Amino acid sequence: MNALLNDSKEHINALLERILEQRKAVAPRLNEAMRYALVLGGKRVRPFLTLQVGQLCGASETSLNHAAAAIECVHAYSLIHDDLPAMDNDTLRRGQPTCHIAFDEATAILAGDSLQTLAFELISRPDATLNPRRQLEMIHVLAEASGDRGMCGGQALDLAATGQQLPESELAQVHIHKTGALIRAAVQLGVLAGHDSAQAHRANFDAFAHYLGLAFQVRDDILDVIGETSALGKTQGSDINANKATYVSLLGLDGAQQRLHDLHHKALHALAKIPYNTETLEAFADHLLNRDH
Amino acid sequence: MNALLNDSKEHINALLERILEQRKAVAPRLNEAMRYALVLGGKRVRPFLTLQVGQLCGASETSLNHAAAAIECVHAYSLIHDDLPAMDNDTLRRGQPTCHIAFDEATAILAGDSLQTLAFELISRPDATLNPRRQLEMIHVLAEASGDRGMCGGQALDLAATGQQLPESELAQVHIHKTGALIRAAVQLGVLAGHDSAQAHRANFDAFAHYLGLAFQVRDDILDVIGETSALGKTQGSDINANKATYVSLLGLDGAQQRLHDLHHKALHALAKIPYNTETLEAFADHLLNRDH
Repeated sequence: MNALLNDSKEHINALLERILEQRKAVAPRLNEAMRYALVLGGKRVRPFLTLQVGQLCGASETSLNHAAAAIECVHAYSLIHDDLPAMDNDTLRRGQPTCHIAFDEATAILAGDSLQTLAFELISRPDATLNPRRQLEMIHVLAEASGDRGMCGGQALDLAATGQQLPESELAQVHIHKTGALIRAAVQLGVLAGHDSAQAHRANFDAFAHYLGLAFQVRDDILDVIGETSALGKTQGSDINANKATYVSLLGLDGAQQRLHDLHHKALHALAKIPYNTETLEAFADHLLNRDH
Repeated sequence: MNALLNDSKEHINALLERILEQRKAVAPRLNEAMRYALVLGGKRVRPFLTLQVGQLCGASETSLNHAAAAIECVHAYSLIHDDLPAMDNDTLRRGQPTCHIAFDEATAILAGDSLQTLAFELISRPDATLNPRRQLEMIHVLAEASGDRGMCGGQALDLAATGQQLPESELAQVHIHKTGALIRAAVQLGVLAGHDSAQAHRANFDAFAHYLGLAFQVRDDILDVIGETSALGKTQGSDINANKATYVSLLGLDGAQQRLHDLHHKALHALAKIPYNTETLEAFADHLLNRDH
């Protein structure tokens, strides 16, 4: 799994590099900031899912590359904006200065804005290997997952909840939107880019993504408590210090571990209903949910 | 023209209201901020162009409504972000407190982000009246006009130029990207939503939009000097006070008036090549370029 993940990461990094290199910049510093945020590091969880699911569903490489790059652009934009002083005010991300520290706040806002736009530019590129109606549906799925009814809505819920202890159902709502929506979209893009016959399995793929996304967040909360700053690339305990509701503050460490185990099980259960060889996705879920950073 | 503009404004406002009303909010305060920025005021120049050009080109009402709403969402998002403290730091817009003043900075950032996403959600909605490949092209045009190679790139150039006197060619580059790209996209969306036969006139429509967009900006710079704060809805002289390069600082008031006249003429010349009844567009250009706010 580690070798596969590294290969996939290299493929995605090369893809993103190529996209940015081919772009003639109007304002060079803006493109440097986009590149800084997009190309440096990251686990590439979302594009990995798009690529793997898409390959299982028989999607073309072209379609998957566009979709995988687009979803990573949305993710990268959200990190830039989340780190801003008016939001989470983080100075460190993946062990590097955040975009507004490395550049400046105005450039970071615009780099985030432009990476969001780039996502829609990439995913709307002419693609002879895709049915155009299916491509339109992919764009729509990406938009619904990213906006006020998805990721941005989750970030707004998260900001509103700072300093409060939420019941678990409300904490789940934060994460279902803030991180879950985009992980689900990553998987949906892979399915939608696939053969017509793969569409029958859309709901099961979606259930897998839903549980994986929530479990991913529970693992994140656990790592915030037990991880080490050097491995995390961000300050250990930063969520606790920010007085944010987390699965650990709500359920305790043992309770959060148990919840992680349940969600992981549900994700694998959904996957087992899909009549494809989903071993790699299983192994990826295991890897992701046992990660130490 | 005033009556037509008012009717169009009411149509667009009702359309935007309807879109936001039908939206179930995940985070209500975020949607209030989106509504605040989107629904309150504005000249609705861009959606007016999309609707008028689209009608000339035989586009369906559904397609035009989606496209017009989308382009106004992009415009509204750009204003929210441009007004932020790290950018132009404006407290007044259209005579009202800017979004980050009326709400808070984090909400304003997210409302801008979400309005951008909403634009792509709207323009990718299923639309049986449109050829799907043409719809994909519309999305691509909107994305290219909005991002680092369009509007955001222009804003980055504008920020980089603050405090400098630019040669006119560089000042034009700022405006061609910052405001011109979206005005051109507004017109292109109208053409693309139209009949196949209308596509032959795409280049002439584009030239019209290009000159109109530049002339619009020259008029803006003139108004910044000669307008009154009460009519402008923003502080008169604010660009001069911010030490920004403008057509007036570069060419003098008379020189800027002359440039406005030339660009206006070129816009009408491009329009005259289109074998449709473009009287309304002509009258609109006259109105826009002689406006006092």
